[in-house]
Amino acid sequence: MKKIEVPLPSKPYNIYAGANLEKLPSMIKKEKLFKNVFCAVDEKVFRLHKERILNVSAQFENFLFFRLKAEENKKNLSSAENIYSKMLKGNFGRDTLVLAIGGGITGDVAGFAAATYMRGVQLVHVPTTLLAAVDSAIGGKTGVNFGGAKNIVGAFYQPEFVFIDEDFLSTLPDAEISAGLGEVLKYALITGGGFYNFIKKNKTAILAREPRAIKKIIFESASVKAGAVAKDEKESGLRKILNLGHTFAHAVEAERNYKIKHGEAVIIGLAAAAYLSKELNLTSERIKEETLNFIRPFSQKIKIDGFDLNKIFRTMFYDKKNRDGELRFVLFSEPGNVLIDVPASAKAIRRALSSALKLFYGGK
Amino acid sequence: MKKIEVPLPSKPYNIYAGANLEKLPSMIKKEKLFKNVFCAVDEKVFRLHKERILNVSAQFENFLFFRLKAEENKKNLSSAENIYSKMLKGNFGRDTLVLAIGGGITGDVAGFAAATYMRGVQLVHVPTTLLAAVDSAIGGKTGVNFGGAKNIVGAFYQPEFVFIDEDFLSTLPDAEISAGLGEVLKYALITGGGFYNFIKKNKTAILAREPRAIKKIIFESASVKAGAVAKDEKESGLRKILNLGHTFAHAVEAERNYKIKHGEAVIIGLAAAAYLSKELNLTSERIKEETLNFIRPFSQKIKIDGFDLNKIFRTMFYDKKNRDGELRFVLFSEPGNVLIDVPASAKAIRRALSSALKLFYGGK
Repeated sequence: MKKIEVPLPSKPYNIYAGANLEKLPSMIKKEKLFKNVFCAVDEKVFRLHKERILNVSAQFENFLFFRLKAEENKKNLSSAENIYSKMLKGNFGRDTLVLAIGGGITGDVAGFAAATYMRGVQLVHVPTTLLAAVDSAIGGKTGVNFGGAKNIVGAFYQPEFVFIDEDFLSTLPDAEISAGLGEVLKYALITGGGFYNFIKKNKTAILAREPRAIKKIIFESASVKAGAVAKDEKESGLRKILNLGHTFAHAVEAERNYKIKHGEAVIIGLAAAAYLSKELNLTSERIKEETLNFIRPFSQKIKIDGFDLNKIFRTMFYDKKNRDGELRFVLFSEPGNVLIDVPASAKAIRRALSSALKLFYGGK
Repeated sequence: MKKIEVPLPSKPYNIYAGANLEKLPSMIKKEKLFKNVFCAVDEKVFRLHKERILNVSAQFENFLFFRLKAEENKKNLSSAENIYSKMLKGNFGRDTLVLAIGGGITGDVAGFAAATYMRGVQLVHVPTTLLAAVDSAIGGKTGVNFGGAKNIVGAFYQPEFVFIDEDFLSTLPDAEISAGLGEVLKYALITGGGFYNFIKKNKTAILAREPRAIKKIIFESASVKAGAVAKDEKESGLRKILNLGHTFAHAVEAERNYKIKHGEAVIIGLAAAAYLSKELNLTSERIKEETLNFIRPFSQKIKIDGFDLNKIFRTMFYDKKNRDGELRFVLFSEPGNVLIDVPASAKAIRRALSSALKLFYGGK
């Protein structure tokens, strides 16, 4: 087990990577958390890992399961209300620990309920997908969809700790691994150096999901995210580097009506960021090509059957985060050297986006 | 205008007492807050102070009114959802300032919406009742009722500042002033000294609602609350002193099925705390009597038509805050010297409570 510190000034906490679910009760004891446990668990995860999860529950006198259907259309206030009701009925007070076992949806909904039940109870994340382990479980973003808009109701709410047992990932379909790899590649591009080189050298092992390789990329990714979050809890500035590729990705997701995985859209976004970095002469042709080569092994299955460039454009410009009208990008001069708040002309954006999309066009 | 600092480590902010609503726009400018203003206002307050409020709105290009019925049964998630919907529809982004003009219900609901819309937007409280000015608008407690339980869903969320224009209080019925005086007396008992003496000497002026006296008790009360909040943002320890009289008060409110004003129940609770302090020999008979005399002028109208002592008892022991089974009280040895976490025998509690209730029994 490896410890990654998230040194938030307001609330420092740890991420335990390479952890074993069996050890979760003793960790809860060690960190002196409350022992009234309300466990929100993805029902699929519960089914697949029932014995191990029940072994955890057996260690507590007051432990209640709440199984949720982790689907995007269940990520709403009704689900949060179901949790509140169950907690009230179970007589859970302020001395409650919410244990969220699942992927991003589980963590977001249960995290939001923990943030708002009795003005906040304790929360521990046990992410069970690659994406949750490297991204959504770290940093305190919780939330639900509302009125057709994603994550519009939520809170920044930090967990007591994050507990990553990579064994959960063994039962994930390949598509769920791919969904997480987009963020992993992003982190590697942000930091460059050893992490970047590890991925270059171990692409086969990663794609074959070798435990050693998966543990390594999770540890490195979680470390990058933890560092960025610690510098900027509420996403006001420094944390922006984490948006590398994301302005493009969000727009591509919207154009696809969210039929594309976020992680796949991120990979397309990273490619677009490489092109745009070159368009603006922030990087060289050589580094752009090298970046595309870096991404390529992990994007073989991403296929786009045509795209509406204008729609992607409109989404980018209407995105509420950019309401002052000027789009600013996170780009890079080379892996490990990221630039934030870079303005770009509509022409440059269009060219970069178009080049990137063509890489994935027609089933290439 | 007087400034009271709330020196919270995580987010220091100011309370402006003796302020003039006219100056609110310039204060928003001075504190460099967002200028997209979503104004949640108690519809009654809006009607009574329409011109002055419209003058504020005229100073902003993007200003939307949301009038709410400030009733306890509207303090729920539906009301918060109405706010989210209006904000979404009005295209309000993260760069939004929620301006809450009203009493406790308005502040709690609008504050909760501000805390959770897009994971938190800016919030300014303009309390318009005595209770809100000295209590609910200060300290960051927001929340709504759920499943028959009060304030069960909420967040600790601090405002950018609190802006108290005492002119709003001029249109309040006497009962609303009484509702706030319970907390004012509590603050005076907590601090003792000049504040305590001011109330003793100026009871007639306070009851006659002389502006000078009202401004003084608001300033002093808000200062006490600000100090307690700054030491203990999440109510884990020091802030407990603010619960003086409240364990009794909550149980009395429940026994009355919430047909009694919180402020009145607090006054009964303060009397019970005086009796219990004496029962436990923490204070003298003389100080107990002096405390009851201190309270008396402000409790003439409180009348109880019989009470179910057993029901009050049950509520006290079932209160979720006291789930470990042992009741602990905030008591005092003399005004200005408060003791927290004092255990008491059931017998002593019963005697104190019974004596206190009798003071208000049969229309005394």
